[in-house]
Amino acid sequence: MNVNFAERAHNHNWKLDPIVRSLLDTDFYKLLMLQFIWKNFPQVHVSSETTNRTVSVRLAEHVPISALIEQMEHVRGLRFRKSELIWLAGNTFYGTRSIFEPGFLDWLEHDFRLSEYEVTEKDGQLVLRFEGLWTEVTMWEVYGLALVSEMKTRAALGRLSELELDVLYARAKTKLWDKIEILRRVPGVSISEFGTRRRHSFLWQEYVVEAMRAALGTSLSGTSNTFLAYKHDLEAMGTNAHELPMALAALAAADEELNASQYRVLELWQKSYGGELLIMLPDTFGTTQFLAAAPDWVADWTGQRCDSKDPFVAGDEYIAWLKGRGRDPRRKRLIASDGLDVDDILQLHEYFSGRIRFSAGWGTLLTNDFRGCHPRGEGDLDPISLVCKLMTVEGRPAVKLSDNVRKATGPVEEIERYRRVFGSVAVEGAAVLV
Amino acid sequence: MNVNFAERAHNHNWKLDPIVRSLLDTDFYKLLMLQFIWKNFPQVHVSSETTNRTVSVRLAEHVPISALIEQMEHVRGLRFRKSELIWLAGNTFYGTRSIFEPGFLDWLEHDFRLSEYEVTEKDGQLVLRFEGLWTEVTMWEVYGLALVSEMKTRAALGRLSELELDVLYARAKTKLWDKIEILRRVPGVSISEFGTRRRHSFLWQEYVVEAMRAALGTSLSGTSNTFLAYKHDLEAMGTNAHELPMALAALAAADEELNASQYRVLELWQKSYGGELLIMLPDTFGTTQFLAAAPDWVADWTGQRCDSKDPFVAGDEYIAWLKGRGRDPRRKRLIASDGLDVDDILQLHEYFSGRIRFSAGWGTLLTNDFRGCHPRGEGDLDPISLVCKLMTVEGRPAVKLSDNVRKATGPVEEIERYRRVFGSVAVEGAAVLV
Repeated sequence: MNVNFAERAHNHNWKLDPIVRSLLDTDFYKLLMLQFIWKNFPQVHVSSETTNRTVSVRLAEHVPISALIEQMEHVRGLRFRKSELIWLAGNTFYGTRSIFEPGFLDWLEHDFRLSEYEVTEKDGQLVLRFEGLWTEVTMWEVYGLALVSEMKTRAALGRLSELELDVLYARAKTKLWDKIEILRRVPGVSISEFGTRRRHSFLWQEYVVEAMRAALGTSLSGTSNTFLAYKHDLEAMGTNAHELPMALAALAAADEELNASQYRVLELWQKSYGGELLIMLPDTFGTTQFLAAAPDWVADWTGQRCDSKDPFVAGDEYIAWLKGRGRDPRRKRLIASDGLDVDDILQLHEYFSGRIRFSAGWGTLLTNDFRGCHPRGEGDLDPISLVCKLMTVEGRPAVKLSDNVRKATGPVEEIERYRRVFGSVAVEGAAVLV
Repeated sequence: MNVNFAERAHNHNWKLDPIVRSLLDTDFYKLLMLQFIWKNFPQVHVSSETTNRTVSVRLAEHVPISALIEQMEHVRGLRFRKSELIWLAGNTFYGTRSIFEPGFLDWLEHDFRLSEYEVTEKDGQLVLRFEGLWTEVTMWEVYGLALVSEMKTRAALGRLSELELDVLYARAKTKLWDKIEILRRVPGVSISEFGTRRRHSFLWQEYVVEAMRAALGTSLSGTSNTFLAYKHDLEAMGTNAHELPMALAALAAADEELNASQYRVLELWQKSYGGELLIMLPDTFGTTQFLAAAPDWVADWTGQRCDSKDPFVAGDEYIAWLKGRGRDPRRKRLIASDGLDVDDILQLHEYFSGRIRFSAGWGTLLTNDFRGCHPRGEGDLDPISLVCKLMTVEGRPAVKLSDNVRKATGPVEEIERYRRVFGSVAVEGAAVLV
C-alpha cells in the first residue's frame, strides 16, 4: 500500500554510492597542517604516494581501478559547503576560537583544489600517486586511503549473502561492544578516535563513534574525523604529522640545516597554534636524538605523540627528559597512536596514571577490527597497513627514519645520509601490525 | 525529498502491533490434535490454565493485563484465511497428502472459534484461564503462551535505548551463529525448530528459522510453527502432546480404565494418522510403566518423543524395549524435546548414531536464548518456563505425572491416585530449566 514509488525508482538510478561525501571527512590535523602549508609554503611542489605494507593482500585484484577513479573524481568535485566553513570559523577547537584565519577560510572556499593524480598497478598493488602544489597534494592522503580502504571492504562485502552480511555486522558489533564494556569499567581513561584513513567504511566509523560517545561519555575525548565532529558536536582531535618535518628536512640545504629543520617545524607551528595544539611528534628522525638536541623552549610544548616507538619506553623517556629540563610531566600530555587495541590502552593508562596525562589515539583496531567476524572464516575484511607518504619536495626525496626501522621511508642512499646526520640510537624493529 | 508521507502518518495511527497475526502461527501438532478432538471428542468440555514455573520472574509486574487482553482479543478476531486453508488441504505433511479431512477444513473455516478466557493476577503472576469446548480451548495454549512470552520481551525492550537494542540483537545474533557454526560441522544431525510458545518474538523466531535453513540445509528438518512452514516452504513438524492422554485419563471411570486410557489414545490416533505421525509420548504417567504394559502393536509405532526423562536414559530404555519386542530400533525414531541446547543435541546425536534415527526438537534455547546478551547485564530477557496445562475435563481434574516429579500437574490427591494406578518407577527430579 505504502510503496514509495519515487524512492524505489530513484534507487535504480544510482550512478555512484560516494564514499567521501564532504571535504570535512578527513583528519582534523590535515586542516591544521593545510593552513600551516598555505601560510608558510604556498608555492612548494611535492609528490606523495600510497604503499600497502600488507603485501600479502593484493589490492589490485580486489579493487577495480576504474571504480576507484570514479570515487576520486567525486572527491575532486566536492567543495567546502558554506555551513561547513561557518562551522570551522565559529567553532572552538581545543578550547580556542578562530583557529582558522579568515584569509585561509576564504581560500578554502574559493581556491582550494585537489591535485592531479595517477593510479597504477604494481606487483598486484594499487599505487596512488599525487603531484602538485603541497596545498593541493596534502589533503589527498586521508581521502585516498579512506577510499581504498572502503573499496576493499565493498569488494569483500560483495561476496557475501544478505544473511552473511547480517552475521558479519552482528559479530563486529559484539566485538566492538566487548571492547567498550572493558573500557567503561575504567574511569578516567581518555580516548580519541583516530581511525578515518583505515576505516571499514564511513558508516561503520560513524556507528563506532556514536557507540563510544553513548557508552563512554567523557572518556571519549573526541574524533579526528572533522565531519563526524561537525555532525555530532564532538571535539575534533589531532595536531600534526610527519609530513611537516619530512618536507622541511627535504628543503634543507646542508647537513647542519637538515638537523635544525626538525625544530624549525615547531618554531613555525607555534607561530600559528598554541595550547593543546603544541603536541610534538619527535620520532620522524628518531625520538632520542630529537629530545637530546632540542632547544630548551621545546620542553614548553604541551605534549608529545609517540607513533613508532614502544609507548611505554617513549613515555618514560619523555618524562625523564621533562624532569631533566625542569618541567613537571604531570602537566604534560602523552598520546600513543600506533596500532593500539583495548589492552594496550588500559595498560598504558594504568602505567602512566599520575605521572603524565595519557591519551590514546585509537585508530585501525577501533574502526576496522573485523578480524574473526567473517561468516566463512575468511580474512578479506581484516585491516591492512596502507599509508600515504611524501615522496619528493621540490624534486628532492623525502625521508622518514622513524623509531621503527620497518617504518622508514625514502631512497636507501638518502636514508643513509639522514642516519649519518641524526644518528640511529634506539631504533627498534617491531612488526608493523596496522 | 523522498519522504513517504502516507507511511509516516500511518505510523502515528497504529492502535496495536499484533503479536499473533495468523491462526497458523501455532505448533503444527495443535492442528493435528484439533482434528483428533473435533473427530472424537467434539462435545467434551475442558479448562486449561497457564503457570509460570519460573516464579522468581513476577510477570504481572512486567505485562499489563489490559495490553495482554488487547492481544488476546486480536487473536480471537482472527479467522483462517482462504489461502491458508487451501495450503492445509493441498500440502503434504510428513510426505502424506490430505492429512486434514474436508469436513474438518470446512469446520475450521466456518465454525472454529476460541473459547472465553479470564486473565487474573496471583502472587505477582499472570494466570490465563480458558474454559469451554475442548475444540475451543486447545488452540489457546500456543497463542496464549507466545503472547505472554512476547509481551514480556516487549516490556524489557521498552527499557532499552536504540543503541542498547542494537547491542542486544548483535549479541543474540552472534550467539545464535556460534551455535549454528558448531552444528554445521556435524553432518547428518537432524533438528526441528520447536520454539514457538516461548519465543523471544515472532520476528526473532522467523530470523532464527531462516538462518538455520540457510546455514544448515537439510539438517534442519523443519519447524513446528505452521505459519513459518507455510510462509517459507518448510516442513511442518510435530505430532501430539500430553493433553490427549491427560484428557482420556480424566474421562476414565474406574482405575483399570484409567490405566488402559494411555493406550486408547494411540488406538484412536492411528485411526486418523500413520507413518511419521505415529510418534508416541510415553511419559505422561511415566515411561517405564507405559512401555512395560504396552500392547504389542504399540511397538509398531514409528518412534517416541521423550520430553521429561534424561534423553540418554529414555533412548536406551526405548531401544532395549524395541529389541525385547523384536523390532529393529534402527528403523525407529527418537525425538528429544526437553530444554535442549547445542551441546545436548550433539552429544545425543553422537550417542544414538547408528542405533536409532535421532532428531532434536529444539525449543526455547533456540528461539529465546538471550542469556548474557542484555546490554546492562540484566536478566529480564532470559527465557522463563511458562506452560499451559489442562486443568479439568468434564469437570474432573486432569493429571500429569511425567518422568520428572517437578513437572507433575494436578491436585495432590489425584496425583496420589494416579501414582497408585501407574506406579512411580524411575521418576526423577531434574531441575526444570525451560
